[in-house]
Amino acid sequence: MSSLLEKILYINGVETRLFTSPSAKLADVLREQLHLTGTKVGCGQGQCGACSVLIDGKVVRSCITKMSRVPDNAEIITIEGIGKPGNLHPLQKSWILHGGAQCGFCSPGFIVSAKGLLDENDDPTREEVRSWFQKHRNACRCTGYKPLVDAVMDAAKVMRGDAPEQSLEYKMAEDGRIWGSKYPRPTAVGKVTGTLDYGADLGLKLPENTLHLALVQAEVSHANILGVDTSKAKMMPGVHAVLTASDVKGSNRIFGLVQGPNYKGDGWERPIINDTKIFQYGDVVAVVCADSYEQACAAAKEVTLDLEKLPAYMSASEAMAEDAIEIHPGTPNVYFTQPLTKGDDPAPFFEKDDVVVAQGNFTTSRQPHMPIEPDVAFAYMGEDNLLHIHSKSIGVHLHPLMISAGLGLPPNEIVMASNPMGGTFGYKLSPTSEALLGVAVLATGHPCFLRYTYYQQMTYTGKRSPFHFKARMAASKKTGRILALEHDFSVDHGPYCEMAGPLTGRGIQFTGAGYDIPNIRGMGRAVCTNHSWGSAFRGFGGVQSHFVGETLVDELAYALGQDPLEFRYANCYREGSTTPTGATPDVIALPQLLEALRPKYQEAKARTAKASTKEIKKGAGIAIGVYGAGVDGIDQAEVFVQYDPDDGVSLGCAWEDHGQGADIGAVGTTHESLRPMNIPIEKIRFSWPDSGKQPDAGTAGASRSQVVVGSALRAACQAMMNTLQKADGTFMTYQEAVAAGKPTRFDGVHTTQGRVCDPETGLGNPFVNCMYTIYLAEVSVEVATGKVKVDKIACVADLGSINNYLTVDGQIYGCIAQGIGLALSEDFEDIEKHSTMIGGGFPYIESIPDDMEITYFENNLREHGPFGASGAGEGPMVNPHMAVINAIRDACGARIYRLPATPDRVLEALRAGN
Amino acid sequence: MSSLLEKILYINGVETRLFTSPSAKLADVLREQLHLTGTKVGCGQGQCGACSVLIDGKVVRSCITKMSRVPDNAEIITIEGIGKPGNLHPLQKSWILHGGAQCGFCSPGFIVSAKGLLDENDDPTREEVRSWFQKHRNACRCTGYKPLVDAVMDAAKVMRGDAPEQSLEYKMAEDGRIWGSKYPRPTAVGKVTGTLDYGADLGLKLPENTLHLALVQAEVSHANILGVDTSKAKMMPGVHAVLTASDVKGSNRIFGLVQGPNYKGDGWERPIINDTKIFQYGDVVAVVCADSYEQACAAAKEVTLDLEKLPAYMSASEAMAEDAIEIHPGTPNVYFTQPLTKGDDPAPFFEKDDVVVAQGNFTTSRQPHMPIEPDVAFAYMGEDNLLHIHSKSIGVHLHPLMISAGLGLPPNEIVMASNPMGGTFGYKLSPTSEALLGVAVLATGHPCFLRYTYYQQMTYTGKRSPFHFKARMAASKKTGRILALEHDFSVDHGPYCEMAGPLTGRGIQFTGAGYDIPNIRGMGRAVCTNHSWGSAFRGFGGVQSHFVGETLVDELAYALGQDPLEFRYANCYREGSTTPTGATPDVIALPQLLEALRPKYQEAKARTAKASTKEIKKGAGIAIGVYGAGVDGIDQAEVFVQYDPDDGVSLGCAWEDHGQGADIGAVGTTHESLRPMNIPIEKIRFSWPDSGKQPDAGTAGASRSQVVVGSALRAACQAMMNTLQKADGTFMTYQEAVAAGKPTRFDGVHTTQGRVCDPETGLGNPFVNCMYTIYLAEVSVEVATGKVKVDKIACVADLGSINNYLTVDGQIYGCIAQGIGLALSEDFEDIEKHSTMIGGGFPYIESIPDDMEITYFENNLREHGPFGASGAGEGPMVNPHMAVINAIRDACGARIYRLPATPDRVLEALRAGN
Repeated sequence: MSSLLEKILYINGVETRLFTSPSAKLADVLREQLHLTGTKVGCGQGQCGACSVLIDGKVVRSCITKMSRVPDNAEIITIEGIGKPGNLHPLQKSWILHGGAQCGFCSPGFIVSAKGLLDENDDPTREEVRSWFQKHRNACRCTGYKPLVDAVMDAAKVMRGDAPEQSLEYKMAEDGRIWGSKYPRPTAVGKVTGTLDYGADLGLKLPENTLHLALVQAEVSHANILGVDTSKAKMMPGVHAVLTASDVKGSNRIFGLVQGPNYKGDGWERPIINDTKIFQYGDVVAVVCADSYEQACAAAKEVTLDLEKLPAYMSASEAMAEDAIEIHPGTPNVYFTQPLTKGDDPAPFFEKDDVVVAQGNFTTSRQPHMPIEPDVAFAYMGEDNLLHIHSKSIGVHLHPLMISAGLGLPPNEIVMASNPMGGTFGYKLSPTSEALLGVAVLATGHPCFLRYTYYQQMTYTGKRSPFHFKARMAASKKTGRILALEHDFSVDHGPYCEMAGPLTGRGIQFTGAGYDIPNIRGMGRAVCTNHSWGSAFRGFGGVQSHFVGETLVDELAYALGQDPLEFRYANCYREGSTTPTGATPDVIALPQLLEALRPKYQEAKARTAKASTKEIKKGAGIAIGVYGAGVDGIDQAEVFVQYDPDDGVSLGCAWEDHGQGADIGAVGTTHESLRPMNIPIEKIRFSWPDSGKQPDAGTAGASRSQVVVGSALRAACQAMMNTLQKADGTFMTYQEAVAAGKPTRFDGVHTTQGRVCDPETGLGNPFVNCMYTIYLAEVSVEVATGKVKVDKIACVADLGSINNYLTVDGQIYGCIAQGIGLALSEDFEDIEKHSTMIGGGFPYIESIPDDMEITYFENNLREHGPFGASGAGEGPMVNPHMAVINAIRDACGARIYRLPATPDRVLEALRAGN
Repeated sequence: MSSLLEKILYINGVETRLFTSPSAKLADVLREQLHLTGTKVGCGQGQCGACSVLIDGKVVRSCITKMSRVPDNAEIITIEGIGKPGNLHPLQKSWILHGGAQCGFCSPGFIVSAKGLLDENDDPTREEVRSWFQKHRNACRCTGYKPLVDAVMDAAKVMRGDAPEQSLEYKMAEDGRIWGSKYPRPTAVGKVTGTLDYGADLGLKLPENTLHLALVQAEVSHANILGVDTSKAKMMPGVHAVLTASDVKGSNRIFGLVQGPNYKGDGWERPIINDTKIFQYGDVVAVVCADSYEQACAAAKEVTLDLEKLPAYMSASEAMAEDAIEIHPGTPNVYFTQPLTKGDDPAPFFEKDDVVVAQGNFTTSRQPHMPIEPDVAFAYMGEDNLLHIHSKSIGVHLHPLMISAGLGLPPNEIVMASNPMGGTFGYKLSPTSEALLGVAVLATGHPCFLRYTYYQQMTYTGKRSPFHFKARMAASKKTGRILALEHDFSVDHGPYCEMAGPLTGRGIQFTGAGYDIPNIRGMGRAVCTNHSWGSAFRGFGGVQSHFVGETLVDELAYALGQDPLEFRYANCYREGSTTPTGATPDVIALPQLLEALRPKYQEAKARTAKASTKEIKKGAGIAIGVYGAGVDGIDQAEVFVQYDPDDGVSLGCAWEDHGQGADIGAVGTTHESLRPMNIPIEKIRFSWPDSGKQPDAGTAGASRSQVVVGSALRAACQAMMNTLQKADGTFMTYQEAVAAGKPTRFDGVHTTQGRVCDPETGLGNPFVNCMYTIYLAEVSVEVATGKVKVDKIACVADLGSINNYLTVDGQIYGCIAQGIGLALSEDFEDIEKHSTMIGGGFPYIESIPDDMEITYFENNLREHGPFGASGAGEGPMVNPHMAVINAIRDACGARIYRLPATPDRVLEALRAGN
C-alpha cells in the first residue's frame, strides 16, 4: 500500500495542491510531479546545492527534504519564481554579466541561494557571501566561485538601489566587436532561468511510453561470470525487459580506439554488457527496462549473479606483478609502451660532480571529474528509422563509430546528439551509457532513458589515470642549466584501453615541457588494472607530467640555491629551444610571462615570509605549464554556415559544449569572421551538436575546438563572403543570393598538420598550437595538522588572441579550482570512501581563494587558430596544483610526492623532512 | 517500434527541445510532456476550443493538432505565455472583471483565442468577436458568452490605448462592502492564468507510481453477463490488475438514496462493476489498472465479454409495456409513484362550456450536461490509512455514504474531496468514477487516476431524464382564471434509481407552479429503462414541469384571446394563492416582475411584428419560472470559521464549487457577516471541500448552498463575534483571543424546516425559499427550414438579496444559454449521433443572443437565506426554454410538444398547424 499526503503549497506565488508520498523528496516532486525542472538535481545527497529552493524564505537543499517535513501552506520559491527570460531578476542579469553560468547546472541553485541571502542581508561582504555558499553547500565545478561572488555583490548593489539596473546589462563595444569582448554566452539566459533543459530535464519530458533503465552492476572488481538469473526480475511490475549480454545484437564490445604499433591488445575488450568477466567495480551485467525508474530499480534488485571472484589488481604495480594473471586473457596487462629518446643518454650526467640532481618517486591521484550533473542519456528510434542517442557526448561523430559494431548497427544508422550538459571535464570523451541505451532501444522498441545516480557517476565513469613515476633531473652547478632528464612511468588505466596510448604519449610529451632539456630518456607504459577505467580529463597527461617536471625543476633550484622563478627563467623555452619530443615551440612565451610575474612573485615571497608564524607557515610557489591545443598529429574539423532568410546565419557546427562555452566560441568566431557583413550577433545561430545534422567537427577534447573548429568556421565564413560579395564591396542579402542562384550553404574545413610522435623514439611535433600558463600560489600550512589553505593565486597566460574574456577567465578560474582540488583533496582510490562529492574531496567555495588574478599576454602569432587564438580549456589546468605544491614546499619545506596533499601526507612529509 | 521526432519550438518565448511521437497531439505534449497544464483538454475532438493555443500567431485547437504538423521552430503561445498571477495580461484582467471565468475551464482557451484575434484586429466589433469565437469553436457552458465578449471589448480598448489599464481592475466600494457588489471570485486569477489545477491537471502531477485506469464497457444496453475473460489483458505490458466484480470487496452496489414508502425497489441496484447484467450502454464490466493510460487502453481491448443480449427498453413506454421483463428482476420497471390531489377533482371542469382547455402530450429531451471538462477523478490511500477520493463530487459528505457498502469500507474510512471542476450542472450529484477508483486503490494499493473521454462523459454519466406528460388545463372564459389542471407523467430514469423520487416529486411540485390553481390531480411515476441513467441537472424536474405548465398557460391565453402576459398577470401567485402542493408562496414576487416586464414585452411584440417577413417570422414569448432553493423538506448545513493568527479567518465550509461560485458565495457571505470586525476580503480564506477537513454542509445541489450553507456561515460568524466582542464594541485580535482563553474555532449550523410532500396526496411545503424569474425571448423562425434563432432575451428576477452580481448574472446568462440549447438543439437520445458536443447540440456563441438583459428585484423578505438571499443556480433555468418555445408560437403559430425544437420538428409543427 503506497500512501500519499496532500499538501497545499504556494509555489512561486501560485497555490498548488500536491499529492505526494510522505517520503518523496521535494526536488523530485518539483521536477517529476510539477515539471519545474529549473531546480536541478546533482548529487541527490545534499552535497551540491544544485537543488536549492527557498521554503518560507530559508534556503534548503530540496533533494534531501522529505515532503513530510515541508510545512503546510509553505511558500516555496524555485528558480522559475525568481525571474524569466524577458523578465530577469538582477541576480540573473548579474550572473550573465559575470559569466556565472558556465555549464550552468549549478546556476539555479546558486541564484536561489543568493536570493535567500540577499533577502536577509542586502549588503553582505564578499566573505559573508562566501560563507553563505559554504554553509549551504552550493558547489560549482566550473567557475572557481569568484565570478559568482562578483555577481552577487553587483546584484546586491542594484537591489539596494546603489547602482542602476542597467549596470547589470552588457554594453556592446562601440565598434560592435564581439571577439575580444565579455559578451555573455548565448545559452546564459536559459541557464540562469532554469529554462534550458539538460538531459534529465529532457528525459522527464519524453513521451509516456519511454522506458526507464536500471543497471544491475557488479560489486566486485574482478570476477568470472558464471550465471545471471533474470527470471524473477522479468516478472516484476512494469518490467518490459531484463537485458543481458545475450540480448545484444552486435559484438557487444566498445572500440577502444587502438591505433599504432605500440598496442598489444586489439582495443575490443570493453563489453557493453559484461558477458564472461567482471573487469571493474560497477561493470554492468544486466539492464532492466521498465515503465518507471522505481520499478526498474526494484526489479534490478531481483537479478541474481553467480560470480567467481578473481584477485583484483587495484594498481599498476599489482597488475604488473609476475604472478598476476591477464585481466583480458590473451593481452598482457602492460599493453602499451612509448619510449622517448632525445639527445644523449642522460645517465652519465647524473654521475658528474658539477651537477645537482633532483629525483623522486611520484604518484598522482585517480582524480574524479565530479561534474555537478551525473551522467544521463536517452535514446529512441527516429522517424527516419535511425537510432538516435542524446547524451553528454562530446564526440557525437566519434561515438557512433565506437559503439556501432557492439550494437550490430552500421555507424550511419546511429545519430548521436549532445544535450546541454552540466559539465564533463573530459570524461564524456568516452561512451558511457550510450551503448546501453542503444541495446535497450533496439531490444524493446521503446524510447529509453537512463540517469546515473551520483554513486554510479563516481564508480562507473572513467577517472583521471594515476601515473606512477620514477624520475630524476640534473642541472649544471656552473651554468644553472638543466642538462638531463630520466623518467619511467606506469599508467594505471583500469581495465579498458580507450585513449591509453595518447595519455601515455602525453606523459612523454609534457614531462619537462617548458624547459630546454637537451637529453632525455623516458618510458611510459599503460597498464591494465581492475580499478576504474581511465578516461579523458582536462589536462590529460599534462597534470601528471607537470607534477614530476615542476617538482624536479623546483628542487633543482633549491639544490642550486637559486630562486625557483629565476631558475625557470634561465631554463625555459627560448629561441632555439626544443620540446621534450624535440620539436620547436610554436611560440616563445615563457620568458615574457615570467618577467611579468616576477614583481608579483617577489611581493608574494616577501608577504608570505612576513606573515608566516610558527603555527601557520606561509609560502609562495610557482609553476609553469605548457600544453597542446589539438589532438596529436593531424587534426581536422568540418562545419558549414547556412545563410538564413532573415540575413542571419545558422551554424552547422558540432562543437560540443560541456560547459566550456561552445556557443560563444562558435558564435564569437563566426561574428568576427563575418564582420565585413555586419551580421548582428543575435542572428548568428548556434545549435546543439547532432551527428545527423552537422558534419564531423571532431571531438570537444584536447583543447582543440577554438583552434580547429574555429578555423573551419572561419574558412566557411570566408567562402560565404567570397561568394556573396558584390562589386561595390557590400554583400548580397539572402534574397539577392537566392535570386542570383548563389548557394546559401558554405562548407568549411580546417586541418592541422602536426607530426605524430615516433613510436620508437617518441620524437615528433604533435601540437602546432600550444598554451602557456604560469601560476603563482600563496598558501598557509597549519603545522600541527598539515592542513593547507590556498590564500591567493595569480595567473599569467599566453593563450594567443582571446575570443571571449568571460569564457577564458572562466576556464582559468575553473582550472584553479580543480587544480586546488587535485593538489589538496580530490581522489577516487577508495571506492566506498571516495564515492560521494564530499568523500571525493570536492572543493567548496572556502577552499578556493577569492583572490584570483589573471593577466593575459595576447598575440597573433599562431597561424593555426582563427585570429591567432589558441585553446584555453586545458593549458591552465596542467600546473595550478604545482604552484600550490611548490608553495607548500616554500612555506614549510614539505615536498609532496603523492597527490593529493591531504593533511596526513603533509604531516608525513613534514616529519620526513622531504 | 515506437518512433519519435525531435522538434525545437519556442514555447512562450523559451526555446524548447521536444521529443514526441509524430502522431502525438500538441495538447497532450504540452500537458503531459511539459506539464503546461494551463492548456485544458475538454472534448479532445476539436469541438470545444479549451485547448486553443497560438502557433505562429494562429489560433489552433491543440487537441487535434498532430506534432508532425507543427512547424519546426514554431512559436507557440499558451495561456502560461500570456500572463501570470501578479503580471496579468489585460485580457486576463478583463476576464476577471467581467466574471468571464465561472468554472473557468474554457477560460485559457478563450483568452488565447482572443489574443489571436486582437493581434490581428485591435478594434473588433462585438459581432467580429462573436464570429471569431464561433469560427474557432470556443465553447463555454457557463457564461452565455456575453461576459466574454464584454471582456474582449474592454481589454481591446486598453490594449489599443483607448482606456487606462486600471479600467480593468476592480474598484472596491467606498464603504468596503463586498455583499451586493461585483467583486471577482477569488479563484478567478487561477482560472484565467491556467494555474488552477483541475482534476486532470492534478492527475498528471501525481506520483509516478499512480496507476491509470481504463474501463471495459458494454456496447449494448441490456444483456446478461455470461463471462468476462481478462486473462490476455492481464499479460499486457504495464498492467497491474484487471479488476472485475469479483475483485470488489464490498457489496459492489452504489446506494440509490431510496427513502419513503413510494419506492418499490430497495435502491441497491446500481453495480460498481456490473456482475450479472448490463443495464445500460457503457456499463463497466472490468477495470484495467496499468502504468500508463495507453497501456491500460491497450489491455482493455483484450478483455473479452460473453453477453446474452436482452431486449433494450429505450423509453418509459417500452419499459412499461405489458410484455416487458423486469430490468432489475424483482423490482417492477415502474418503481416509484407520486400522486397529487389538490382541491376538487378537476375532471368536471373540463366538461363545462364556459371554460377553455389547453392540452397535449409532452416529451422533454434527455439533455446532456456537456460540461467542457469530462469526468475525472483520482484516489489514493492517505497517510491516515483512509481512502481519499478526489473527484468532481458536489456531495463530498453524501458520496462516501453511497459507495461505502459497495466498497466494503466504513464510510468514516472514506474521505471525499472535490477538485476544481470544469462544470457539472448537477450530474456530479451522482457518484460516477469514485467507486471505480475506490475499488482500484483497494485492490492495487496504488494511487489511481481515471479520466473519461468525452465519449464516456456523454455515454456513461447521468442525463436529464425525459418526462412524458399527458396534461390539460382549464380556465374560465368569464373570469379568465385558471380552474383546473390534470396531468400524468412518466419519468424515463434509466436503469438506476438515484434521486428518481425527488425528481418525480418536482414534476408534481412545479407543474403549474407560479399560478393559483385551485384544483389539481396529478400522477408522476419513475420508470426503469435501459437508456442513460437519470441524474441531477440544473432545474431538476422544473425544466420538464415548466414545459408543460408554460405551454398550457400560453395556450389558454390564446384560447381566451388574451395576451399571454396579461393572462399570466391575472393568474399568478398573489396574497392567498397556493402552490400546486397547496403551500403558501414564500414571497409574492410575480406581479411586480410582470409589471416591470410589461413595457419591454410590449415593445418586443411591436418590434417583432414589424420586423416579421413571410420568410422569417419573428415573435416574442414569455415564461414565468418558480423553483425552490433547498432540498425537499428539512435541509441542514454545518460549517465552521477559524480565526487565524493574522486576524483573518479560514472557512471550514464544504460548499462545493462546480463552477457556480462557491468561493465568492462563501467568502462574500462571511465578509458581510463579519462586517463589524472589518476583516479584509483577502483574509477570508476559502478552501476546497474535503469531507476529512470540514463538517457536512450538504451537497451543492438544489440551489441550496447560498441559502442553507450561507446561513450556517452567518451563524458561525455571529458566534465568533459574540465571543470576541469587547466591552467597547470592538473585537479581540487573534492574539488577544488566545490570551483570553477564547476559542478560535466557531461552528455554525443552519436548518430549514420545510414540510415534505405527503406520499399519498403530494401536498406539502417542501421549499421555504424560492426563486422567481420571468423571461422574455424574441426569436426568428425561418419558415422554409424551421431554423430558429434567438435574437434577444430579457430576464426579470426576484432572487432575494444578491450576494454577488457577477456570479448571479453569470448564473442567469448560463441558464439562458442552456435553456436555448434545451429549447432548440440539445439531446442525448441517439447514443451514437448525440455522443459528441456537436452531435449533442451544444450551443456555440452564435446560437446565443448577445443581447441579454437582466433586472433584479431585490428584497429582504426571505428569512431563510442570509441577508435575504435566495438561490440563483436553478430558478433561472426552469423557464428560458419556455420563453423561446412560446416565442416560436408567437412568431409562426407552431406549438412544440417535444423538445428540442429542432428544425424538422418546427417544420412538422408548422405543417400540423399545432
